Amino acid sequence: MMKYQITFLPSNQITHAPEGTTVFNAANWAGLAIDSTCGGRGTCGKCKVQMRAGANSISDADRKFLSAEELANGWRLSCRAPIHTECIADVPRLMTSPQAALLGYGRHVAIDPNVAKVYLQLREPSLEHQQSDLARVVAALDKAGYSARAIPEVWRALPKILRANDWKITCVLVGDELIAIEPRDTRDKMYGLSLDIGTTTVVGAIVDLNTGTVVAVKSALNSQAPMGADVISRVSHTMMNADGLEVLQSRIIGTINALLDELLAISAIVRENIYECVAVGNATMLHILLGIDPEPISVAPFIPTILESVTLPARDLSPHPSPKGEGAGVRLHSDARVSTLPHLGAYVGADIVAGILATGLARNKDEKIRLFIDVGTNGEIVLGSVKRTCATAAPAGPAFEGAQIKCGMRASNGAIEGVRISDDVELQTIGNVSPIGICGSGLVDAVAELVKCGLVDKSGKLLLRDEARARGIAEKLIARLVEENGVRAFLLAENIVLTQPDIRALQFAKGAISAGVQVLMQYMSVTEKDLHEVLLAGSFGSYINPASARLIGLVPWIDVEKIVAVGNSAGEGAKIALVNYREREAAKRIPEYIEYVELSGRAEFNDIFTEALGFPTVDG
Amino acid sequence: MMKYQITFLPSNQITHAPEGTTVFNAANWAGLAIDSTCGGRGTCGKCKVQMRAGANSISDADRKFLSAEELANGWRLSCRAPIHTECIADVPRLMTSPQAALLGYGRHVAIDPNVAKVYLQLREPSLEHQQSDLARVVAALDKAGYSARAIPEVWRALPKILRANDWKITCVLVGDELIAIEPRDTRDKMYGLSLDIGTTTVVGAIVDLNTGTVVAVKSALNSQAPMGADVISRVSHTMMNADGLEVLQSRIIGTINALLDELLAISAIVRENIYECVAVGNATMLHILLGIDPEPISVAPFIPTILESVTLPARDLSPHPSPKGEGAGVRLHSDARVSTLPHLGAYVGADIVAGILATGLARNKDEKIRLFIDVGTNGEIVLGSVKRTCATAAPAGPAFEGAQIKCGMRASNGAIEGVRISDDVELQTIGNVSPIGICGSGLVDAVAELVKCGLVDKSGKLLLRDEARARGIAEKLIARLVEENGVRAFLLAENIVLTQPDIRALQFAKGAISAGVQVLMQYMSVTEKDLHEVLLAGSFGSYINPASARLIGLVPWIDVEKIVAVGNSAGEGAKIALVNYREREAAKRIPEYIEYVELSGRAEFNDIFTEALGFPTVDG
Repeated sequence: MMKYQITFLPSNQITHAPEGTTVFNAANWAGLAIDSTCGGRGTCGKCKVQMRAGANSISDADRKFLSAEELANGWRLSCRAPIHTECIADVPRLMTSPQAALLGYGRHVAIDPNVAKVYLQLREPSLEHQQSDLARVVAALDKAGYSARAIPEVWRALPKILRANDWKITCVLVGDELIAIEPRDTRDKMYGLSLDIGTTTVVGAIVDLNTGTVVAVKSALNSQAPMGADVISRVSHTMMNADGLEVLQSRIIGTINALLDELLAISAIVRENIYECVAVGNATMLHILLGIDPEPISVAPFIPTILESVTLPARDLSPHPSPKGEGAGVRLHSDARVSTLPHLGAYVGADIVAGILATGLARNKDEKIRLFIDVGTNGEIVLGSVKRTCATAAPAGPAFEGAQIKCGMRASNGAIEGVRISDDVELQTIGNVSPIGICGSGLVDAVAELVKCGLVDKSGKLLLRDEARARGIAEKLIARLVEENGVRAFLLAENIVLTQPDIRALQFAKGAISAGVQVLMQYMSVTEKDLHEVLLAGSFGSYINPASARLIGLVPWIDVEKIVAVGNSAGEGAKIALVNYREREAAKRIPEYIEYVELSGRAEFNDIFTEALGFPTVDG
Repeated sequence: MMKYQITFLPSNQITHAPEGTTVFNAANWAGLAIDSTCGGRGTCGKCKVQMRAGANSISDADRKFLSAEELANGWRLSCRAPIHTECIADVPRLMTSPQAALLGYGRHVAIDPNVAKVYLQLREPSLEHQQSDLARVVAALDKAGYSARAIPEVWRALPKILRANDWKITCVLVGDELIAIEPRDTRDKMYGLSLDIGTTTVVGAIVDLNTGTVVAVKSALNSQAPMGADVISRVSHTMMNADGLEVLQSRIIGTINALLDELLAISAIVRENIYECVAVGNATMLHILLGIDPEPISVAPFIPTILESVTLPARDLSPHPSPKGEGAGVRLHSDARVSTLPHLGAYVGADIVAGILATGLARNKDEKIRLFIDVGTNGEIVLGSVKRTCATAAPAGPAFEGAQIKCGMRASNGAIEGVRISDDVELQTIGNVSPIGICGSGLVDAVAELVKCGLVDKSGKLLLRDEARARGIAEKLIARLVEENGVRAFLLAENIVLTQPDIRALQFAKGAISAGVQVLMQYMSVTEKDLHEVLLAGSFGSYINPASARLIGLVPWIDVEKIVAVGNSAGEGAKIALVNYREREAAKRIPEYIEYVELSGRAEFNDIFTEALGFPTVDG
């Protein structure tokens, strides 16, 4: 796709945008706020810029808001100005400095949500001032700079609410839809719901859209769990059962509604004041949420039905006629909208797009190269800067989730999450209780420490006792080398062993991710010393020991301080998209800006993968 | 509102369009078809015209479809060319002469419906050709010249239908919404439903949208009848009963669904192949259909909630959550759309707009002045030509419906519908059975004949026997002059009298309509000799004797041959809007082109009304 350079004055900021992007959206991408109330719909007339070069032809909206002299001097409404050539736009300073919230990975996000509440004091109609109720409201909104299509529920509410409230109402707009009118002035009550729908865990947050404050946040287990631990088994469930998709969909909606009930209870907010939800998750989770068969995602050639960002009424999440009768869908305001962020590909989903949004990876002005890794059954990898960004997914398998590991378990109470090996073994468990198994971060730590002390060699082989003794390893450790049914193992604690196959599983997992990282680095001609930061996403990223991750080769060999956990970046990205529509527009465009690299199509992958199975040479 | 002249070459046809109208829509208004498949959405690139004067600035769509040379020579996409000045457009000849149907009042309507079926044979995806299912379909539609937003139900249907049918599907578009996909090629099955929703009678027709043929037509009584005979009593019902609106709405939806069942039975068409419905009716009927409180229409200052044309899913006619559970709404294809035509005012409704469409009154190229009258409780009057048109509503009262007439009845079996008076009285009854009452057309005939023979004088007074004898009136007629409780009456048949108050009621009714006509004629400086035709709409218009209508002064005194019944012009207009989206666009714009004259606001009305109560002087 053709991209053109656009320079914004007076800041002299340069960005590159795909052909046809508006100057307004290019500025949003660059994190530059141009004044606007209508959200780039050409109806408020506020977003004017002076094109110093590359001005587009004059649009109808330009004529409406700009004088002939201004037009002749290159002034245009930036939201009606598609880019067809290199251009330079001079952007007037914002009249008011917008309130901002700190969200994501240290991002200041201006409060400019996709939801707007507009308070109207309308003139009462008379025989002389004939106008339908709808036309009266639409005209007043238009005058206030908003263009809106009213939904049927608003038509129905209009005559009574207008006449019962002295023609004073608050209009609720979500995007360009007028979804509700409320009596009198209700502008202070305006909330949104962000959802990060993981295969295992769903995280929801209620955000005050007037302030950007997170009012309540909660997580819950995805109640699809009984149908399988990972996306593949969920998809299998839909294939093996006639009502499989329906059951999975109603379970995720049930999970969300239960989570919502809790959020409402702790925040004392009423659901009627939640007008919008932004949901992120992997492609399979979002397909199921939308009631779309995910099967084609899981079989070659891995084609999702929808990669695009979509918006629909929250109640229409359930198909019509609803099998559950009334109250189906997510129970926010009865006409609330749900929007999803786009996916980059079948296996790099909206959760990663949200992570890119939350970290600013593809848009940071510093032009520094960052590597983003979300470690899981699939390792999603994004590498780049504002200049160029690539993404891929590496099939890591379930080792990092603690699955298919002999004593593996999820990261819950009693899981070994930290391991130190000196003369003997020191363990740290979640909840500081006696260990009952080992989770992903513990596994990484254990293997890293075994490599470091020499009990595991470069190829990943656990030494025999004699070999260990020959290397002068402490007897306490040697005593922990055991064999069960001919399988070598290391005794971490009573009844808890780390077996040779466990180490192999971890090697495959980290090898796949490492190979994915290396393919992207080669593809972009990036070396380790070019890397400014490695961002580890998700809860795994938060608990993993960066030194251990580096030691086993899961991440490139860079300064440990440069390996940073960015937390639930998916959920943060969803919140950012909720709080600022410009950021959401930028998120929708992320797929246009990022190259998706399919590993299975690349000849070098297998070689690199084989190389990456071993452990880096360690000095000491 | 500012209007500009636009001249179309080579036909040299001139029309005037409000500022901002596109050249494409101005051509539609003038009945001139410019090539297009996308319906004026800027996506098919076919509607190009060469602007000889008044070219607009270049749009994005222009750039996409036209070369630099063409642009320099004034070529533009007419659907992206808003009129901001006088202009001249040279329109290329249509490559194919479109099939047409004869509809309305002798109108040839090209078959170009708002519903489109597009058959796609898609390329199967592979690892090399990655694209979401939705993107694949949208891209193929785009290539075929259609721009469409898929609804969630289509997302859900896509993966299975595509894969089960070798990637061969038919897309069903209603306007710019992709509402359904069907396996393989189903283009031959494409139907629409037209509805004329009268206060008394509902008329429905299934139209084959491939041919414009009316496949089945049926009428049914509006089952709201028990809640009152006219709009005022219906509105009262909603005011007096908490669930009044809900009951009335579910009754009209019930009437439509029952009518639809009959239409389906006689046509052997399945409801899943009916994708769109165009509904017309007066403002109160359409508000109730949409579930909107009609009360403000009936009390000063008479403000409807919606005057505009609206479109919504047929199933969303009932509010959410549906009180009736699944299957609420009109039961066409489960994602069919319902569109209404706009109203001109609270008392000149979409039925009249449809009548204007069906008769071509405001658009006929002949520039001749026509007077359109729909006689009923409200007499709706439209007067004008393509140059200028006005409309009004006159409060006629219920006399023409046979109500508040001593022996009045609806036009059903046994109703006197025709009266001749010479030496004695000759009657014609509906169904040729013994008379049991008198309907509207019979009433007009009876009074006209009584005036003609001299038994009713110019002021409307029924003569006494002595007065009649003095005038030499035949004895057989004199014998029919009776008195009941001091009320003069004329005996039409055994037990059927026409009373002096009946004559007065008719005088008020016809006086109101006549005064409305005269106000419009004065307003537009039109005299009787300027009138090319008087068009009488509705069933009353079909049964009335034109000579009698003229004789009592209901219509202006012009040649009887120029008084024409145009039948159910409302239903015909709905069919035209169904068969041709350009005509529908024209219908939506009718309110912009027609001046609405409010009689109650006009000082001269009362004087003219008083004058109009009497009968014209009759020679012979």
